[in-house]
Amino acid sequence: MTVEPIRWKGDALELLDQRELPERTVYLSCRTAQEVADAIRSMVVRGAPAIGCAAAFGVVLGKGSRESYDVLARSRPTAINLFWALERMKKAANLEAEAKAIFEEDLAANRAIGRLGAELIPQGARILTYCNTGALATAGHGTALGVVRSAKAKNVSVIACETRPYLQGARLTAWECVQEGIPCTLVTDNMAGYLMSRGEADLVIVGADRIAANGDVANKIGTYPLAVLARRHALPFYVAAPLSTFDAKIADGSKIPIEERPPEEVTGYRGTRWAPQGISVRNPAFDVTPAELVTAIICEKAVVRDPDRARLQALMSTGV
Amino acid sequence: MTVEPIRWKGDALELLDQRELPERTVYLSCRTAQEVADAIRSMVVRGAPAIGCAAAFGVVLGKGSRESYDVLARSRPTAINLFWALERMKKAANLEAEAKAIFEEDLAANRAIGRLGAELIPQGARILTYCNTGALATAGHGTALGVVRSAKAKNVSVIACETRPYLQGARLTAWECVQEGIPCTLVTDNMAGYLMSRGEADLVIVGADRIAANGDVANKIGTYPLAVLARRHALPFYVAAPLSTFDAKIADGSKIPIEERPPEEVTGYRGTRWAPQGISVRNPAFDVTPAELVTAIICEKAVVRDPDRARLQALMSTGV
Repeated sequence: MTVEPIRWKGDALELLDQRELPERTVYLSCRTAQEVADAIRSMVVRGAPAIGCAAAFGVVLGKGSRESYDVLARSRPTAINLFWALERMKKAANLEAEAKAIFEEDLAANRAIGRLGAELIPQGARILTYCNTGALATAGHGTALGVVRSAKAKNVSVIACETRPYLQGARLTAWECVQEGIPCTLVTDNMAGYLMSRGEADLVIVGADRIAANGDVANKIGTYPLAVLARRHALPFYVAAPLSTFDAKIADGSKIPIEERPPEEVTGYRGTRWAPQGISVRNPAFDVTPAELVTAIICEKAVVRDPDRARLQALMSTGV
Repeated sequence: MTVEPIRWKGDALELLDQRELPERTVYLSCRTAQEVADAIRSMVVRGAPAIGCAAAFGVVLGKGSRESYDVLARSRPTAINLFWALERMKKAANLEAEAKAIFEEDLAANRAIGRLGAELIPQGARILTYCNTGALATAGHGTALGVVRSAKAKNVSVIACETRPYLQGARLTAWECVQEGIPCTLVTDNMAGYLMSRGEADLVIVGADRIAANGDVANKIGTYPLAVLARRHALPFYVAAPLSTFDAKIADGSKIPIEERPPEEVTGYRGTRWAPQGISVRNPAFDVTPAELVTAIICEKAVVRDPDRARLQALMSTGV
């Protein structure tokens, strides 16, 4: 089964409602830029590349009006793909053609990332991954989970961290793996250290929401601890992301805006609350992994080992 | 309000049913050793010192029969306090008096731990803690959270990690803090690294389920990553536990049996399931933090800095 998170219908954008997975597979139809922005904010669609694609089609629905750009730009702050897609749309002569190109290029980028990344994966590797970086998070195929897909013939298996608070690992990555017959074990996020200490994971691969000019990586909250643990256990820590996730204008990770989301995501799940009334909550949605903890960044053009400012500058200057 | 997790009634042991917190405060009455063992296994009562106390009263209800010892010893494998309490009961002339002594000594030990530990806590410290180590986990007052209680006058605040999968932090620690007016912020476990990287936590303090002869600490799954992160950020990492948690017979942490609990704790919460059908699950309930990551162990007798085999041997040999 092929997962189609985003379907363009000419006068509407159909989004697979990821809030309802894995229980139900339902599509939400957006007919205005505002509806697309609402869908991004409320996590109907999530994942940095998928947000970029959805926003591009949102501009098409908004007929390129200034309001459509504004409302989409305000939907979520951290993933740079959103702003990258809006910038591309602003320069485009034909909005619909450009949005379709952004979508098709993301799909092609993911497949290239998968090919390049799969070369790094040893036979039979037990791959620890985080959040959802599969077809659902992109135009298709996926970034980090796309590497797993592309390496499937190597008899790899996945350890999926559940990814609190929004449970993208438990709900989405586990679902994609079950759909595709990729062996997958679900764990809570805090079990990764235990598994590493017992020699039960061979490498870590994650996606990214924004990569600063020096190689610092903003990604789903909880990524940074995995990188610290991987370093302690001498495991490779890979980041898989298309060039649309790179933000050359931001010098380092400390400048990346980190979204704080509603406390209800932490105090319970959907209608169920388990925390007591009156408790304070923090809910930052992303953290920053310093470049020095990243073994390599895998993009559609190259594998950049030991990423730093010079290597990323060289990557960007050679053209896409 | 004083939390009373364990009430001895002469012919019954009343246990505050911690599975129902924070929604409901209900007591479960146990009249046999089997019922106490079931209550321990099903987490009506949890926390290493509280398990030890409950097991002692379980032996009283079982009139010291061999079956009562056997059924209680099989209830949960990791917390050594359980076996320590059973050993004490085996040697006792008067079972009820011994069980009461175990309970009263635990309460006194917690208060002593609180006093000694509070001296280590700076004014206004933002204390990151894990799982529940409060009154609910002990005969009363608590171990790590007992140190926070004893340091309350220093205007400390708590960062409580929710502690997946069983949510002892979100349900129990948050509840105790709200009850007592201790400022407390709830976060998911994977946010600790972010808060440390932003300078928003000053120290970490946790409890223990078993401390090996060399100072390695088995504690709730997710403790080890916090110790690794604390080291990276040069934050003190304290372990607070009574002497009943020390296991001189186990050379190091690799020999501590780690309980694996049912997959349903990971795939959802109570009746709600969020993971897809067909997914594999791991659910180890504890991990091991190597002694080298522990700044100090706080017990009722002393603060043992840089714990190792020699220092723990010296501690134990000077008598309680």
